[in-house]
Amino acid sequence: MKQVPVGVSARHIHLSQEHIAILFGKEYELTIMKDLSQPGQFAANETVSIEGPKNSFEKVRILGPARKESQLEISKTDSFYLGVQSPVRESGDIEGSPGIKIVGPAGEVQLDKGVIIAARHIHFHTSDAQKWGIKNKQFLKVRVNGERPLIFEDVIARISDNYALDMHIDTDEANAAGINTCDTAEIIDY
Amino acid sequence: MKQVPVGVSARHIHLSQEHIAILFGKEYELTIMKDLSQPGQFAANETVSIEGPKNSFEKVRILGPARKESQLEISKTDSFYLGVQSPVRESGDIEGSPGIKIVGPAGEVQLDKGVIIAARHIHFHTSDAQKWGIKNKQFLKVRVNGERPLIFEDVIARISDNYALDMHIDTDEANAAGINTCDTAEIIDY
Repeated sequence: MKQVPVGVSARHIHLSQEHIAILFGKEYELTIMKDLSQPGQFAANETVSIEGPKNSFEKVRILGPARKESQLEISKTDSFYLGVQSPVRESGDIEGSPGIKIVGPAGEVQLDKGVIIAARHIHFHTSDAQKWGIKNKQFLKVRVNGERPLIFEDVIARISDNYALDMHIDTDEANAAGINTCDTAEIIDY
Repeated sequence: MKQVPVGVSARHIHLSQEHIAILFGKEYELTIMKDLSQPGQFAANETVSIEGPKNSFEKVRILGPARKESQLEISKTDSFYLGVQSPVRESGDIEGSPGIKIVGPAGEVQLDKGVIIAARHIHFHTSDAQKWGIKNKQFLKVRVNGERPLIFEDVIARISDNYALDMHIDTDEANAAGINTCDTAEIIDY
């Protein structure tokens, strides 16, 4: 049994150091509210507002640390609400994705790209992947046995010595399956 | 190949004749905006507001004709937004489900039950079900090959001479799969 814990990602944003300075003030440093499953990653106490063409979200959580490029990760449901046409992408692959307006306590940023729907994926520590014979970027089939059982296909394997075993899905996917963070998924075929 | 057209149900409400009278006025009759896939069913021009404990939705579409009991069908995402804990249920099975406040142009109704998340299902005309050897209430596995391929399990078969072949899923399920109304699903096992 290749069992993997599930982590459900609500909408969140990663910010560049430059954008943190504009939104929160020069030399501002994000503060840690909670460590996340992946080593070094954290949910910050700080939030921003996101203003789409149709609607806005307030208090969108920032995940730290700062990244090279700012990136807003939303569900497809969120994309209809905001009024943006976001592609399903791997984190960091933001070329051609729509931009959006970010509002912080010290200023505003108009992103020209970076709004994506995260492609579902599993983080494997290198040792987990070796044990199960899984290759980086491989597509996996994963069954979740929640209130509404289903099998996710095209779940991308991402392998690193810096990762902890965890499957990341968004709120649409979690709600379609009737599962929550801390539920368990099973890789059924690869 | 057992192929079935997909119909995505956005949040909507069915109303009893009594509640239509309270919300829109005595002897008011719903008017047809659009016929739906199931014979005799229609989307009405009329809408209502829904007021949950946390948030509200305006312009929630009424589906006609009137039913014996009023029933609000929402996605799980909607349930978190409204602030209600709705069960996943077959249409009509509303015992023990939460209530909610409905506001129309002529009055308000406080439902004491009826807010459900519709269990995914396929409507079969009796002849389709016979041809494919499918029984009423059977659980089916259904693959959808959208932008985010997946296999829905526990899709309930509902068979009647009054039904047209159509799989009904909610917006969370459609968004998790990256599919829309008019896409095609395939029954893969039964």
